[in-house]
Amino acid sequence: MSKAIVLLSGGLDSTTVLAIAIDRGYEISVLTFNYGQRHDFEIDCAKDIVAHFNIKTHHITNINLGFIGGSALTDDLDVPKDRDLDEMNSEIPITYVPARNTIFLSYALALAEVERAFNIFIGVNALDYSGYPDCRPEYIEAFQTMGRLATKSGIEEKEQLQIHTPLIKMKKSEIIKTGMVLDVDYSITHSCYDPISKGQPCGRCDACQLRLKGFMEARMVDPLNYPEIQP
Amino acid sequence: MSKAIVLLSGGLDSTTVLAIAIDRGYEISVLTFNYGQRHDFEIDCAKDIVAHFNIKTHHITNINLGFIGGSALTDDLDVPKDRDLDEMNSEIPITYVPARNTIFLSYALALAEVERAFNIFIGVNALDYSGYPDCRPEYIEAFQTMGRLATKSGIEEKEQLQIHTPLIKMKKSEIIKTGMVLDVDYSITHSCYDPISKGQPCGRCDACQLRLKGFMEARMVDPLNYPEIQP
Repeated sequence: MSKAIVLLSGGLDSTTVLAIAIDRGYEISVLTFNYGQRHDFEIDCAKDIVAHFNIKTHHITNINLGFIGGSALTDDLDVPKDRDLDEMNSEIPITYVPARNTIFLSYALALAEVERAFNIFIGVNALDYSGYPDCRPEYIEAFQTMGRLATKSGIEEKEQLQIHTPLIKMKKSEIIKTGMVLDVDYSITHSCYDPISKGQPCGRCDACQLRLKGFMEARMVDPLNYPEIQP
Repeated sequence: MSKAIVLLSGGLDSTTVLAIAIDRGYEISVLTFNYGQRHDFEIDCAKDIVAHFNIKTHHITNINLGFIGGSALTDDLDVPKDRDLDEMNSEIPITYVPARNTIFLSYALALAEVERAFNIFIGVNALDYSGYPDCRPEYIEAFQTMGRLATKSGIEEKEQLQIHTPLIKMKKSEIIKTGMVLDVDYSITHSCYDPISKGQPCGRCDACQLRLKGFMEARMVDPLNYPEIQP
C-alpha cells in the first residue's frame, strides 16, 4: 500500500480530499497546522474528522506564521464580509496568508521524506479560490518539481514525489457531492474565517459565502448552524 | 535601496553571505531559526553577528522541526565524527534535516512578500556540501521558479523574486578569504554540529572538519577554541 500525507485543515475542501485519498487506497498520515489562525476551532474539527475516518496517524503541529503578519487570518485586521463573487475575484484579499501553502507543503515534504511517502494531498482549488496565487495549477507543478530536487528520495529512490490536487478544477458543489458519496460528514467540518463562536460560522465572510453557494448549487442543506437564513 | 532577506544561522557560510549582501548595498532583514538544533549556541552567535554589522531588523523565529525527526541535528542520534572527505561525499549523512532548506526558504519567501523584498540570500554551497540534496543549484533554481508563482508579488509586481546563493560554487577557503575582506569576525561564528560546550566546537564532526580544512587552505588560523591541535 502506498503512503500519502494529507494536509487537513478541518475545512470542507481538505476533508473531501482526505476522503478521496482514503478511497484511492493510500495508507495515510494526516498533517494539521496550528498557525495562530483566528478560526482555530477548525483544529478541533480536524481531530473529529480523523476520528470519523479512523485514521491512526495525525500530526498536529504548531507553526509560527504570526511573525510574518500581513493577513486578516493571523493579525487583528477585519475579515471582509458580504462581498459578491466579482469582488472576491477582483483582487487578492486580506485573508491571504503570505506563502502559507508553500510553508504547509514544505512541512508535508519533510514528513513525506521521513515517512517514505511519495504522495502529498492538498485541497487547493483554482475556481472558487478567492484569488490566492498559491492555489494555481502552475504553482503546484512548480512545487512538485522543486520538491523532487529538494529531497534525498529525489536522488536515491525510483518513485517520485507526486502532489495530488484532486479538487483543483472542481466547483464547490461538485466537491460537496463527491464528499457525500465518500462518507464525509460536513457537520463536523469548518470553513468560516471569523466564527461568531466555536461551531457557529458568521455566514458572511468569503469562505462562508462560497460554502453556502456550493451547498445551494448542489441542492443540499449545509448542516452548520448559521446565524441567519441561508441566501 | 532594494530590500533583501538574509538567512543567518550564525555559521561561517551564512555570516559571509550577510557580509556579501551588505557589500552589495541591500537594505537587510535577517532571519534566524530556532528549530531545536542541538547546536543552538549558533543563535547567540547570530545575535552577535547582527550587532557586529549594525543591522536593525533581526527576526528570530521558533519553528518546529522536531516532529519530523530523522536527523542527528534534531534527534538524539550520534553525530558522525572523524570522517574523511570521501566518506562525507559518499552518502547523505545523518545530520541532513529533511527539507530544512525548503522550510527555511518558505518562511523567507513569506517574509519577503510582507516586507516587499525581492531578494533572498542563502549560504548554500555545492562543493563542501556534505551531500545535502537541497544545496544543489538545480534545487535553488526550482525554488525560485516556485516562489515566483507562489506569491502575490509574482502576479502583481514587475520585479521578480531572486534567490541569491553567492557561495554556491566557492571553496570553503574562498568563502573565508571573501569574508575576511568584508569585515567578518569569524571568532563570533559557529559551525560545529555537536559542541562540547557553548563556544567550544568538537573539531571532529563534518562541519568542524570542513571549516578547519578551509582555514588551513586559506592559510589562516581559525580563531575558535578547539579542544585539540588543528590537523
